[in-house]
Amino acid sequence: MEKSLVVGIDIGAQSSKLGVVDAQGNILCQTVITSLQPTLTEYIDDLTAAVESLVSQVGGKEKIKGLGIGAPNANYYKGTIECAANLTWGRDSEGNGIYIDFAKIVSERLGLPVAMTNDANAAAIGEMTYGAARGMKNFIMITLGTGVGSGIVIDGKVVYGHDGFAGELGHTISIRDGRQCSCGLKGCLEAYTSAIGVARTAVEWLQKDDTPSLLREVPTDKISSKDVYDAAKKGDKLALEIFDFTANLLGEAFANFIAFSAPEAIILFGGLARSREFIEKPIIESMNKNVVSIWKDKVKVEFSQLKDSDAAILGASALGWEL
Amino acid sequence: MEKSLVVGIDIGAQSSKLGVVDAQGNILCQTVITSLQPTLTEYIDDLTAAVESLVSQVGGKEKIKGLGIGAPNANYYKGTIECAANLTWGRDSEGNGIYIDFAKIVSERLGLPVAMTNDANAAAIGEMTYGAARGMKNFIMITLGTGVGSGIVIDGKVVYGHDGFAGELGHTISIRDGRQCSCGLKGCLEAYTSAIGVARTAVEWLQKDDTPSLLREVPTDKISSKDVYDAAKKGDKLALEIFDFTANLLGEAFANFIAFSAPEAIILFGGLARSREFIEKPIIESMNKNVVSIWKDKVKVEFSQLKDSDAAILGASALGWEL
Repeated sequence: MEKSLVVGIDIGAQSSKLGVVDAQGNILCQTVITSLQPTLTEYIDDLTAAVESLVSQVGGKEKIKGLGIGAPNANYYKGTIECAANLTWGRDSEGNGIYIDFAKIVSERLGLPVAMTNDANAAAIGEMTYGAARGMKNFIMITLGTGVGSGIVIDGKVVYGHDGFAGELGHTISIRDGRQCSCGLKGCLEAYTSAIGVARTAVEWLQKDDTPSLLREVPTDKISSKDVYDAAKKGDKLALEIFDFTANLLGEAFANFIAFSAPEAIILFGGLARSREFIEKPIIESMNKNVVSIWKDKVKVEFSQLKDSDAAILGASALGWEL
Repeated sequence: MEKSLVVGIDIGAQSSKLGVVDAQGNILCQTVITSLQPTLTEYIDDLTAAVESLVSQVGGKEKIKGLGIGAPNANYYKGTIECAANLTWGRDSEGNGIYIDFAKIVSERLGLPVAMTNDANAAAIGEMTYGAARGMKNFIMITLGTGVGSGIVIDGKVVYGHDGFAGELGHTISIRDGRQCSCGLKGCLEAYTSAIGVARTAVEWLQKDDTPSLLREVPTDKISSKDVYDAAKKGDKLALEIFDFTANLLGEAFANFIAFSAPEAIILFGGLARSREFIEKPIIESMNKNVVSIWKDKVKVEFSQLKDSDAAILGASALGWEL
């Protein structure tokens, strides 16, 4: 029987999304399980049961080419999840992240080949397989979510680097000695341009002076990037300036990334990419202002074409075709 | 007859170095011609005559697999030299750089295949073929000369990107709104960490206050990075601080580069790399202080193993093996 389907699994800190996908990128069936199991054993039990249930709906394991998994701190070369302290079952009793031979465990339980990588790389492969990057050989995927992730594609292949962890562009430095980042460094791109970063900017700016803003109606400790978006939609000047500031830093960072790999396009994905109407123009302006002249006005900035609800599964599933 | 030799040509703004190289990296014979010809025709006449003379010394064209050329603004995909305004024959009467179908012209004149790339990429290939990067699949070559160039190797291949110009790491921004760079941008890595950048730092710091320094014995408009090196050798505090400052910026930049491609090593080459005794330690400290924790103390900083006098020819020649 032809192995014409793949399973995509996106493991997030809260929940894991699973789906069976065909070669055209149609999700034939899907489900969601909690990621918040206390132990790895319980999580693996849940996960493999959910996969088996989905697979039986599409005609059984014989149809499945493989499983692609996107997970935090996943190592493509080794199939491990390494030190993912944000997963309940990814840390020891003292809260330190541990090494988990995840692909091997799942593969043995299901009797199917498994490939895994981090979520941003999975998104890049998804975009290349089914989305905005079809036909592109050189592009950079930037995921603007709670954090800022990246998947770099050169010559049609995701860059994994010497150790399997390449593409941590959210932790390049945007502002020297700037804001503390969760990674331990200061001034990272992520500390400013993630959803959390945008909210931090809002709080900082509101506390700086008395500029009137719709954002003052939200309790300071509750402000989210969605509030900034809603205020900007209503024409709030401060909210619009926050997006300008954020977009400007993204454009500067993109200029540096271009000098590295000379991509055809930079593709944005994730929650903050939905603020496209406020960030697209200033990102492009800032990028072209800061880039070496040979690339001025030559590199495209695009937004993901994958539906948000499907993208995580599609991205991970695309990895299954490589097995 | 076995084609067991390659010709390496390094085209600099002042002079061009040529040599015939065997598979072990021995330069069998070499010569130098001026690059300062007024027209392209005259330069090509000189260059092809020099190649033919060398080739006849080693037994004729039948032994030559191909020519590898390293040149400013060379495009690997197209074999062109594009807008190299620093070459006398690379610009029009108004001083603007022009497009030259260089590889095709030379190949037709000599009846041999020709590949070309920029000098930093050539250095990376040379290092991978004959030098410090033998056996490495993922590394970044940084050339610290008059300018700062880079050659990025991922999965054993030089990164050329969408347009053939990838790897302009000298023009990533080190200091926002900093020093004017010759490329038109401000605050580029090259503006601080090239030989010229080091001299500019010296002049700036000498003019800032009256700190005593051996560098005050050199007329300000004549100060070179060599003077800073000589002063540092004598223990001059200001000169040592200049190297610390330079190395610190390099380390910060390297931390960002690592987040991109997760290389096994960063390899330094060029005039300023000869100041190893003053820059190695602070580069490594700064790099490890600024890099994401997964790479702390894991990425090697190495110095080229190729002899300076040979490296340019060897680097370019290595490209000839790919033909």
